[in-house]
Amino acid sequence: MRILRLWFLFVLCLPAVAQTSNLSGRWFVSTDLYGTPIYYPLNLVQQGDKLTGDFGGDKLQGTLTSNTVQFHAVDDQGGWEDCKATIANGLLTGTIVFVDGSDKEHPQTRQFTAKMVPVISANKSPVRHDFTPSVFYRRFSHEIKPVLTIHSGDTIHTTTVDAGGADEKGVTRVLGGNPETGPFYVEGAYPGDTLAVHIDRLKLNRDYAISDDGIVPRGLTGGLAIKTKDNNANVRWHLDLQRGLATPEKPGEHMASYAVPVKPMLGCVATAVNSAAAPPGTGDSGRFGGNMDFNEVVEGNTIYLPVSVPGALLYFGDGHALQGDGEINGNALETSMEVEVTVEVIQGKRVPGPRLESSSHIMAMGLEGSLDDAFKSATDNMANWLMEQYKLTPSEVAMVIGTASEYKVSEVADRNAGMVLKIRKDLLAHLPKPASK
Amino acid sequence: MRILRLWFLFVLCLPAVAQTSNLSGRWFVSTDLYGTPIYYPLNLVQQGDKLTGDFGGDKLQGTLTSNTVQFHAVDDQGGWEDCKATIANGLLTGTIVFVDGSDKEHPQTRQFTAKMVPVISANKSPVRHDFTPSVFYRRFSHEIKPVLTIHSGDTIHTTTVDAGGADEKGVTRVLGGNPETGPFYVEGAYPGDTLAVHIDRLKLNRDYAISDDGIVPRGLTGGLAIKTKDNNANVRWHLDLQRGLATPEKPGEHMASYAVPVKPMLGCVATAVNSAAAPPGTGDSGRFGGNMDFNEVVEGNTIYLPVSVPGALLYFGDGHALQGDGEINGNALETSMEVEVTVEVIQGKRVPGPRLESSSHIMAMGLEGSLDDAFKSATDNMANWLMEQYKLTPSEVAMVIGTASEYKVSEVADRNAGMVLKIRKDLLAHLPKPASK
Amino acid sequence: MRILRLWFLFVLCLPAVAQTSNLSGRWFVSTDLYGTPIYYPLNLVQQGDKLTGDFGGDKLQGTLTSNTVQFHAVDDQGGWEDCKATIANGLLTGTIVFVDGSDKEHPQTRQFTAKMVPVISANKSPVRHDFTPSVFYRRFSHEIKPVLTIHSGDTIHTTTVDAGGADEKGVTRVLGGNPETGPFYVEGAYPGDTLAVHIDRLKLNRDYAISDDGIVPRGLTGGLAIKTKDNNANVRWHLDLQRGLATPEKPGEHMASYAVPVKPMLGCVATAVNSAAAPPGTGDSGRFGGNMDFNEVVEGNTIYLPVSVPGALLYFGDGHALQGDGEINGNALETSMEVEVTVEVIQGKRVPGPRLESSSHIMAMGLEGSLDDAFKSATDNMANWLMEQYKLTPSEVAMVIGTASEYKVSEVADRNAGMVLKIRKDLLAHLPKPASK
Amino acid sequence: MRILRLWFLFVLCLPAVAQTSNLSGRWFVSTDLYGTPIYYPLNLVQQGDKLTGDFGGDKLQGTLTSNTVQFHAVDDQGGWEDCKATIANGLLTGTIVFVDGSDKEHPQTRQFTAKMVPVISANKSPVRHDFTPSVFYRRFSHEIKPVLTIHSGDTIHTTTVDAGGADEKGVTRVLGGNPETGPFYVEGAYPGDTLAVHIDRLKLNRDYAISDDGIVPRGLTGGLAIKTKDNNANVRWHLDLQRGLATPEKPGEHMASYAVPVKPMLGCVATAVNSAAAPPGTGDSGRFGGNMDFNEVVEGNTIYLPVSVPGALLYFGDGHALQGDGEINGNALETSMEVEVTVEVIQGKRVPGPRLESSSHIMAMGLEGSLDDAFKSATDNMANWLMEQYKLTPSEVAMVIGTASEYKVSEVADRNAGMVLKIRKDLLAHLPKPASK
Repeated sequence: MRILRLWFLFVLCLPAVAQTSNLSGRWFVSTDLYGTPIYYPLNLVQQGDKLTGDFGGDKLQGTLTSNTVQFHAVDDQGGWEDCKATIANGLLTGTIVFVDGSDKEHPQTRQFTAKMVPVISANKSPVRHDFTPSVFYRRFSHEIKPVLTIHSGDTIHTTTVDAGGADEKGVTRVLGGNPETGPFYVEGAYPGDTLAVHIDRLKLNRDYAISDDGIVPRGLTGGLAIKTKDNNANVRWHLDLQRGLATPEKPGEHMASYAVPVKPMLGCVATAVNSAAAPPGTGDSGRFGGNMDFNEVVEGNTIYLPVSVPGALLYFGDGHALQGDGEINGNALETSMEVEVTVEVIQGKRVPGPRLESSSHIMAMGLEGSLDDAFKSATDNMANWLMEQYKLTPSEVAMVIGTASEYKVSEVADRNAGMVLKIRKDLLAHLPKPASK
Repeated sequence: MRILRLWFLFVLCLPAVAQTSNLSGRWFVSTDLYGTPIYYPLNLVQQGDKLTGDFGGDKLQGTLTSNTVQFHAVDDQGGWEDCKATIANGLLTGTIVFVDGSDKEHPQTRQFTAKMVPVISANKSPVRHDFTPSVFYRRFSHEIKPVLTIHSGDTIHTTTVDAGGADEKGVTRVLGGNPETGPFYVEGAYPGDTLAVHIDRLKLNRDYAISDDGIVPRGLTGGLAIKTKDNNANVRWHLDLQRGLATPEKPGEHMASYAVPVKPMLGCVATAVNSAAAPPGTGDSGRFGGNMDFNEVVEGNTIYLPVSVPGALLYFGDGHALQGDGEINGNALETSMEVEVTVEVIQGKRVPGPRLESSSHIMAMGLEGSLDDAFKSATDNMANWLMEQYKLTPSEVAMVIGTASEYKVSEVADRNAGMVLKIRKDLLAHLPKPASK
Repeated sequence: MRILRLWFLFVLCLPAVAQTSNLSGRWFVSTDLYGTPIYYPLNLVQQGDKLTGDFGGDKLQGTLTSNTVQFHAVDDQGGWEDCKATIANGLLTGTIVFVDGSDKEHPQTRQFTAKMVPVISANKSPVRHDFTPSVFYRRFSHEIKPVLTIHSGDTIHTTTVDAGGADEKGVTRVLGGNPETGPFYVEGAYPGDTLAVHIDRLKLNRDYAISDDGIVPRGLTGGLAIKTKDNNANVRWHLDLQRGLATPEKPGEHMASYAVPVKPMLGCVATAVNSAAAPPGTGDSGRFGGNMDFNEVVEGNTIYLPVSVPGALLYFGDGHALQGDGEINGNALETSMEVEVTVEVIQGKRVPGPRLESSSHIMAMGLEGSLDDAFKSATDNMANWLMEQYKLTPSEVAMVIGTASEYKVSEVADRNAGMVLKIRKDLLAHLPKPASK
Repeated sequence: MRILRLWFLFVLCLPAVAQTSNLSGRWFVSTDLYGTPIYYPLNLVQQGDKLTGDFGGDKLQGTLTSNTVQFHAVDDQGGWEDCKATIANGLLTGTIVFVDGSDKEHPQTRQFTAKMVPVISANKSPVRHDFTPSVFYRRFSHEIKPVLTIHSGDTIHTTTVDAGGADEKGVTRVLGGNPETGPFYVEGAYPGDTLAVHIDRLKLNRDYAISDDGIVPRGLTGGLAIKTKDNNANVRWHLDLQRGLATPEKPGEHMASYAVPVKPMLGCVATAVNSAAAPPGTGDSGRFGGNMDFNEVVEGNTIYLPVSVPGALLYFGDGHALQGDGEINGNALETSMEVEVTVEVIQGKRVPGPRLESSSHIMAMGLEGSLDDAFKSATDNMANWLMEQYKLTPSEVAMVIGTASEYKVSEVADRNAGMVLKIRKDLLAHLPKPASK
């Protein structure tokens, strides 16, 4: 069986809220499904004793009588949900009966609790956290205790070890495989939101990087596989931090003068996946970001990731001094890094997959099992962005992409291949309602 | 950074062995790498005080002096390993210095222990275990405590819940997503071995199955996506256990007489992956098997999987009453099952990915991110089988595959696509050295 | 610019028809577009002086006044066509103004002529043609003069040379590259129709075949490319016509007893493509069939191909004594062949791509640039078959494919990869309106 | 059967050369294979009466006795060729016996003639040809009579019609589908050479372009296919030639201010394919270039294409006022164009597929049936470029690509998908032996 994608599964851990005089707002519903918490968004609008809104996207109608809430929500497949609950201390408690439109004889009844999600106000006094990591994790897990809790608008100043686990002194601190700094718990981030991670600063903090001279399978024709069959060696690069140049430490005769400007980037930025799924390893990527290995995850840019568990649980690591498109050696110039990011929660909007923004471009990423599927996925991600943000019609979306698209390969080294569709922001500047995100 | 594939990482848990008068044999070496145990195979041949053999594939030469072992092993990239250890109570303890041929200035020293792997003798009195599962797991994890320990040659008679977690009485026991029966620890199975799982019996044990009427993205052209955009419903099928037929419970006008013979199969059979990797969820597949959804994993057939951790840790589940090639609805006819399997360890041979055998065919599976890559991978798996088992040259391999190949699609519903290359056993019957596995 | 697919382009060469008292029927419209004839189907229903029907799928309304025909047809994009013509001797002559809904300011006016397509009646006395080929063609061209004209229901008995151009005596007659027997002009076949080619007989007529020991790129991982890098030789196979077995003429030590039953097949069966396109070479394939290299194009089976030019122009060749799935060596066991086919025109129905039928299965082929796209295309082809022929709803189509699909690889050796979706006919036997086509 | 790729097939049409006192040089050998001329390169070095060199890459040894030439050439598969000929008036005439190493019993004897290829000297007085096209071709054919003969170094100043066949006055001159200007015969260009086409000038010569608002299948997920199912319209764009901006002629409410800078490009540049293959239509692409639709085929850049027939036969057309990466609408902004190109023959070097050069980058293109295969092919093309031109080892090639690669999508609209690997020339500036081509 294929595993269904459950977009709204997460752990309930909302702070207690004072007694709500009016139920209008966004609620976070937690049901228990055979030991695993499964969660839903609930939007309520209370007018007198009447309730409207939606439950997990299904339109609802109901009533509030004294402290008793009842509602009936319907989906567009002939199914529905019936809810009966009591409200006390801001906590809604009761049962929901789920009826599948194609199998009405087998309704399912679950206990639930719900709390209202607080609206994040502008962070009056954002905090800059200096954080020195002592442990590094090798899974993007929702099960790991956060190393630090921050608020939307706060800044984290910290370091990352290289993909092999070595720090700025060259001391190996952990088994390799992209060990991550984090996870950071972001107050006020709930499933259904987006996390914006602004990369304020990415600074190299040691003078060498490790790479290799292989070519990954996605780059090899049979002929090139034969020609490069003896490629297999580690390659150390010297990082000239003053001049910002990388050079091979032991070049052969042809490469003695080869030097490439560094462009520090993070190979991994991730939020945790939903609570019902197995946590991905730090070599993997997906809608949650992860090991994207995209060489525009650089200082000055912002990455948008979906929030799937309360607190989002932000991870980052796998710094590269520089990397060609696709990370075709399997390793880029792997090195440790000094990192400063500012984190913001965008409430009530969920990006379908990683999106980025630079001073000049918006960028939508697709991560799939092949470049062909990643191309489709990046196009879909961008098309939805243009429809949501710029209110374009499908016809207009096609016209804009057709005339403004820049498609580049972001990743070929890992299980997922990555493609990015970039569009210049100046071309979009005269469209109605341009908005960041 | 791409995550390197570490084929020989596993947890040391060999039983203590009596003092070894001769060191000749297969050893299991455990090193500690920043908290994660990393393991290697070691083969020693002792003649007097001289030692030969290989360490993780690298040829070694050394000496045994009193209770002190020393050896030097070299790889074909200019690197080497130097080992110094003492032997006591059958346990080898000491240090290994690893030198990378392309970076000799940075040797790495690790502590290690090693024990000899016992040779499995023919299981004189195999045991048939009746096992009633009480928990079901949703990850193919090496971190889960085994539910039962068995020996090579033993038989397990048990049951599986359906992909949604419901048992033979229709009672949901666990959150859906292919919850598995197991893991079973198989004594004597070590990394570098192969686990053979003979499916003795697969019996339907309830009269309905759950499926749906969707078509997964890998099956959809844009045109078919538009035509099937309203497909989305669950479909219940009646299983006539007497006549062995499946029929839709509520057929529309055209399907009133549609009936398909059942062919019970297991969607999932897996061994645990190595100890340094994140455990895959039970919707995933790979070289370890997993959610292969191949409709020839049926009664009478044998599946071969690589052993990556001590005890192999066998999981199975996700029974299907029947399934077309590829599981194109995402769900097959999902149902609970009575299962009986006999498990055998094939020591010292490691299959590169799932292989199967029926009375008529040998079958090699490829599981990759696209059908194109899965096709290559299945071909590679079979080519290696023919080279190893039948001693064919590359030219002969091409001639046999060219004239005898049957390629079918095994899986399109999950993250990995699957292809299987089948070859009739009677065509191979006259080749030299045919051997099962 | 992408070349638009023009499905209804073909050459007008209808026989003159006696004066039509009633215009009702199917017409074949020829317009001249800058020197290239472009054609459209026109269906007219005359009731008194009123005309209804459709022009190239666009609903029309019009009138017949004396010998003057006028109609107005509208498409669903806001565009239309206006026709004004006179009828004389069964020939309609006049002008059509084409208006594009998204660009109404730039109408296009074209001259046209049209004739009525005669309805083919059951061929009372089908003819068996003994045809000895003297030339062989290396393009599936609509520009080549037919070698023989036949009627629907007739049988052709002839021979084919092997892929290298050698005949049954081993004499090379033409440069290699799948030289074809044909083209055969089938009276009454018009664009919009389907050609059914029943393979009555495929008989080997010499005792050897030519193949090689390579593996084509679609089958090669990098590792297998390296292992097989010295494979490159031609391989001659002996064909034992009595026992029906193929054996290598000079087997190495391991293959001395290797023998495979022959299963003669045609690598190529094709109709000509439309008149505006460049004729494909005989190594290519597509919706017109061509070099499909599918090992179920065998005696007893029927292949359905779309008709794109008047007379269809049937080609066949590239006989294989036998072939594994996909023709992974690039060459199968290439040999000459004695061929007997019966050809039928199915009027007014056009298959979207190659379909086959055996005694046990219906089969829909997809031919695209990758196996992933071919899989989608085969699924689409079959889904449409089930909707058209069995009147299934999209939901029912998914249920049938999900439970009955058999997907196999047909071709990996050429520019297009091929996949075939097969369904057992007995499973469809109880659906309403089963009909062969 | 797969069609073998015959790289050295072409038509003999060398000018007669005066009696050669010494045979040393590059020869052009024409053999007749069942009516199709098949050709080979022959390199001879004469020292006294001894001959060395190679025949089609196979090392040869031979003698010149009076006017009789004899040589024996061997391949690395155990096969050989024996040549016996006489020399008269600079023309070599005789027979070659071809022996296949894996099938020595079946030698093949062919008549041949050969002439010496003149060395092109620097074109002292290049000519600028003003050429007004009167016909436009829809196949990249070697069978079409050249419209003009030029010399290496000459410049062609001409015009192209748009993809739909309309010229600068909006008059349709030919059926659409990328009708081409050309073919131009380039004196001195022979198979085995490369043709360099410098684009000196690309100037828009009318004030509108035609496009559409569709999205091609390679860009569509199922979800996006459903959302864009009503996209289907032609879109006319106004080209403001003064300001260099394109705007939709009839924008909807959101696009009223949308304007994109023009960047004129040629969708098609091609040389004819070899004489044994079917000529591709002008919607197709391949190693010969063709309908590449790459938006860096712009003024100032140079494109390198392999020569496959004498004279190369250069075609170009399909101008786009601008195009996003991949031509995702199927049509770019299709328009007519004023074109000026300078053509150069690079003798004795053959590019394996299209390569480009701008002031800042070298670029290698891959054109295959999927983006995944095109990515491999582009990487292979660039790797070979770096090995040939910069003499890099396979290890160094991987290091350069790993640190300097820029991969972009060039084409998704046609049968072949295109990828381009770009590398900045300044990064290569300090490698040994940089050379243009």
